[in-house]
Amino acid sequence: MSAAPFDWDRGFALDFALADGLSRTAVSTKRRLSQMRGMYSDGAAFEALLAKEDPLVYEFYELGAPDRPGGLAFGTSVTYPGRVGREYFMTKGHFHTILDTAEVYYCLSGQGVMLMENPEGDVTQAPLTPGQAVYVPGRFAHRSVNTGDTPLVTFFVFRGDAGHDYGTIEEKGFRNLIVERDGAPQTVGNPRWK
Amino acid sequence: MSAAPFDWDRGFALDFALADGLSRTAVSTKRRLSQMRGMYSDGAAFEALLAKEDPLVYEFYELGAPDRPGGLAFGTSVTYPGRVGREYFMTKGHFHTILDTAEVYYCLSGQGVMLMENPEGDVTQAPLTPGQAVYVPGRFAHRSVNTGDTPLVTFFVFRGDAGHDYGTIEEKGFRNLIVERDGAPQTVGNPRWK
Repeated sequence: MSAAPFDWDRGFALDFALADGLSRTAVSTKRRLSQMRGMYSDGAAFEALLAKEDPLVYEFYELGAPDRPGGLAFGTSVTYPGRVGREYFMTKGHFHTILDTAEVYYCLSGQGVMLMENPEGDVTQAPLTPGQAVYVPGRFAHRSVNTGDTPLVTFFVFRGDAGHDYGTIEEKGFRNLIVERDGAPQTVGNPRWK
Repeated sequence: MSAAPFDWDRGFALDFALADGLSRTAVSTKRRLSQMRGMYSDGAAFEALLAKEDPLVYEFYELGAPDRPGGLAFGTSVTYPGRVGREYFMTKGHFHTILDTAEVYYCLSGQGVMLMENPEGDVTQAPLTPGQAVYVPGRFAHRSVNTGDTPLVTFFVFRGDAGHDYGTIEEKGFRNLIVERDGAPQTVGNPRWK
């Protein structure tokens, strides 16, 4: 969470540069590869990469929006380019704690995919390219995957009290993976999905 | 509302060009000057301008988000440059019907101001410049004002069931106006505010 004081009761403006998605005022939450053990399908490739370096996989903003159904949380998410074996760098992904709450993303730069799935087994995905908005309905876990060579930058908004459930995905994974085949992204079933 | 079919239950992507904010898929709602009679402070300047032309003042997207507290409505808003007398082109502005629901704006291009005020008389404003996000808290009416020479483009998100109350502002106006003085925007009290 950023240390900056935001006036959620009277409103405020906050900078997120269109060029790289980053704020010069707020402080981002960073996720390095070492914090994602068990989330990529190729465990050997994961350990081999981590033995060499611990890259920043993604960062995003948690501004401390009040936990109220009438409020909104917002910020940017930046997923960096890279792969673990054939699987592209991605966010951990999450359900909302209040499951039936939506999220909206608007892609500012980069190339990628939003993976979505609900507990009923509906699985879908949407392209993340500059100028594409993506509507993630309530009940759908969602994960951003960077399939390009540049940072994937999105602006996101969700309900202030929605909350994040990361544990379910950490345990079960997503039903689909996005992997590189012959230089292009391909969606494949996740053999380790529980 | 757009005729395009959007899958609010399973998610979808929709284009809003970063360059001009407009969608090539969805159809915008357009507000021309003739639809804003009584909303600008200089009535004579309003009638004089309208006698010459009926310019497009702003346009925005109403995608038909379901009326659910767990859903989100989103789109872009484009306010064109211009003035009625000394007062800059602006949106009608609105409260939400469910008053205590917030809205988030992210400015993609242009120069302007977000005017905000609540029924208790708290009045504030925030800059709209490229890369600035603005948090409009629940209870605050809000209006975008274009103080520049190019279209003012924002991406917005609010709760799916929030609704719009335009009537209160049409009747009462905003407490503050943004007018041009010596070539620069200035915030002044609205002498006609009720």
